[in-house]
Amino acid sequence: MQATIITIGNELLNGKTINTNLNYLAKGLSSIGIKVSRAVSINDEASMLLKTMDETNDELIIFTGGLGPTHDDITKEIVCEYFNLELEFHEDSYERIKKTYEKMNRTMNESNTKQAYFPKEAIILPNTNGTAPGAIIQINGKIVVLLPGPPQEMHPMFTHVLAYLEERVQKDFYEDGFLVVGIGESDMEGQLKPIYETYKDTVNIAPYAGLAEIQYIFTASDKDALDKALKAFKKQFDEYIVGPYNVPLEECVVDVLSAQNKTISFAESCTAGLLAARLVNVPNASKVFNESYVLYSNESKIKNLGVNQMIIDKFGAVSDQCVYELAYQVAHRTRSDIAMSISGIAGPSGGTKVKPVGTVYFGLYHEGKTKTYHRVFAGDRQMIRQKAVTYGLYLIYKALMHENNHQD
Amino acid sequence: MQATIITIGNELLNGKTINTNLNYLAKGLSSIGIKVSRAVSINDEASMLLKTMDETNDELIIFTGGLGPTHDDITKEIVCEYFNLELEFHEDSYERIKKTYEKMNRTMNESNTKQAYFPKEAIILPNTNGTAPGAIIQINGKIVVLLPGPPQEMHPMFTHVLAYLEERVQKDFYEDGFLVVGIGESDMEGQLKPIYETYKDTVNIAPYAGLAEIQYIFTASDKDALDKALKAFKKQFDEYIVGPYNVPLEECVVDVLSAQNKTISFAESCTAGLLAARLVNVPNASKVFNESYVLYSNESKIKNLGVNQMIIDKFGAVSDQCVYELAYQVAHRTRSDIAMSISGIAGPSGGTKVKPVGTVYFGLYHEGKTKTYHRVFAGDRQMIRQKAVTYGLYLIYKALMHENNHQD
Repeated sequence: MQATIITIGNELLNGKTINTNLNYLAKGLSSIGIKVSRAVSINDEASMLLKTMDETNDELIIFTGGLGPTHDDITKEIVCEYFNLELEFHEDSYERIKKTYEKMNRTMNESNTKQAYFPKEAIILPNTNGTAPGAIIQINGKIVVLLPGPPQEMHPMFTHVLAYLEERVQKDFYEDGFLVVGIGESDMEGQLKPIYETYKDTVNIAPYAGLAEIQYIFTASDKDALDKALKAFKKQFDEYIVGPYNVPLEECVVDVLSAQNKTISFAESCTAGLLAARLVNVPNASKVFNESYVLYSNESKIKNLGVNQMIIDKFGAVSDQCVYELAYQVAHRTRSDIAMSISGIAGPSGGTKVKPVGTVYFGLYHEGKTKTYHRVFAGDRQMIRQKAVTYGLYLIYKALMHENNHQD
Repeated sequence: MQATIITIGNELLNGKTINTNLNYLAKGLSSIGIKVSRAVSINDEASMLLKTMDETNDELIIFTGGLGPTHDDITKEIVCEYFNLELEFHEDSYERIKKTYEKMNRTMNESNTKQAYFPKEAIILPNTNGTAPGAIIQINGKIVVLLPGPPQEMHPMFTHVLAYLEERVQKDFYEDGFLVVGIGESDMEGQLKPIYETYKDTVNIAPYAGLAEIQYIFTASDKDALDKALKAFKKQFDEYIVGPYNVPLEECVVDVLSAQNKTISFAESCTAGLLAARLVNVPNASKVFNESYVLYSNESKIKNLGVNQMIIDKFGAVSDQCVYELAYQVAHRTRSDIAMSISGIAGPSGGTKVKPVGTVYFGLYHEGKTKTYHRVFAGDRQMIRQKAVTYGLYLIYKALMHENNHQD
């Protein structure tokens, strides 16, 4: 089954509201294997609504918005006009709307009466968080779903819609995948070609690129083919796979630290707290994380962690030598099992020929040894800093897993 | 001029990504008086792309997505096919893409070459944050704009597109507004009614709510009416206005600190570096910011800043007493002119009846005095932490401005 989603409301087209309804509906439909072929946002204009319906060939059409009491709200009326359905007064809905108003200590408006009209073919979806009921209408081989625009009203109704749809779609739909870090998307794409080719008819492999990390999501109706494609991918890209696609990188890092009973600390310069803050996205970060330093100026690096002034004078704060000292010192002062330092040039100014904007150095203390790394990231100031954090977490993850392998 | 926005990408239709591009583009177009008649999201499928273009009557068509190096990326190719435009190798773009790769110490893939092909009619928009260039093409009385999907790549290019479009739309269009912090959107809306009412025929006042901050953007074709509405708004909400709508809060704070020649430091618990990291979003933060502490565990608060164990035992780490100590100590140890501490319960667990999830305490040292504040924020763990950072910056801003008023 394929679906078209039509979201209605001026606020979507003038930038006032982000269309989270589309995302919510698409995610729900995707979870039961229904593909959305197209999503359209339009104003409450009859002609545009009719045109958009006319252009849709999908079996399932879902509308949100335009079910309110005002004269602007025309979705239900136009849909019924399009399918030649007659609107009838629906007693139950009327009573419910009336009660909702009473609960709010307000009297029901005459205009709300129109919210109680539905074609007799409709399955009516009561609104537990507002006045406008929704509806499912089966007509001319199509399923038409009408939902209100406010998310808090729409969400509970959509649960019923999904249950209704689930009975009508094929059951064999599988999804899995990986989170990949430490390699660029175009490098991956080049190397992935044979796998794409082998599974092009059976498995859909979709990359979702974030900042210095990529989710690869595999979907298929054939479980065997899916497993084989996953295996082939894992074999080829094991080095870059951090975990399943639906677990954030920072959670993978906290999980491994937790399992190994280790604590971590940071000394951050250009990222200035972003690395610590991202680790603390994970609710149980407190098991592995106690404290961290943001050392933005050169003086603060010297004062707080005893970095030698000569190192900064001779090599600069963005250098192997400086991040080595920072990582070593932060590990010893905090008595953490693993420590990372980050120092880089996030821009827009401060770049040189040798160290252009985007250059970031990493120091990593682990098991008595301190190693340094560096990398040049593309993007603006905020992207460079976020990519540095992702890459730093990747280095930490790799160091922790390497030890694990040794234990095998 | 009317516009159709076509956003391309499987991730928009399976619920993986919220379509923030549509919102960004619509807001921009709206700011120069261009109305979006329809927004369509589709997959990278040639037939659907052609169908969608065919159904569009608008003078302006803006595409995002599908400009990458992979075989899936077909937007440019299909648009050119539709308009019978020939793709030619564009030397400058090729060199730019190559340089981007060199900067990252990576070699350019063969697949990236296709990103350097454009019709000769195109105005090419270089990509400062990635490889795929965008383009503006004037053809058959239409303006077709091609932009990449990743927001950080698309945003800088769209600035050029807006400048290009602005020359082609009517001139009598004005925009201005404010950034408002420290008051909820529904409170604002209630109090704003008289202003909305007074200016309803002349000035469009649109709120864009972020996390604990709201941009109010005023647009009008009548400059006089706009100025009057701005003045009325400023008079009524002066307390909550931080700056113009298009300057981020952290930049306002850095500017005031800079002007007053002051330095700032933080001691962060639940926000764990987010506040420092947000201040460092501002490129010249180094003028006012040297160092900061992330003190997540109770022990780290005692060890690093000498918070009395008894305070934590008696009142807890999320208390007036604890944030008072943290702010006072961090100011004295770093010799900063102003210091803020943040300690709260970000959830999902850890809440109590007296201090539910979302409770956040703030300590603020300034001019020899330490004051404390607290607030309960709604939302999930990440939202609570981000709202706390915004509110913390607001408290800092207010403290700094208050001193200024005294000097007057």
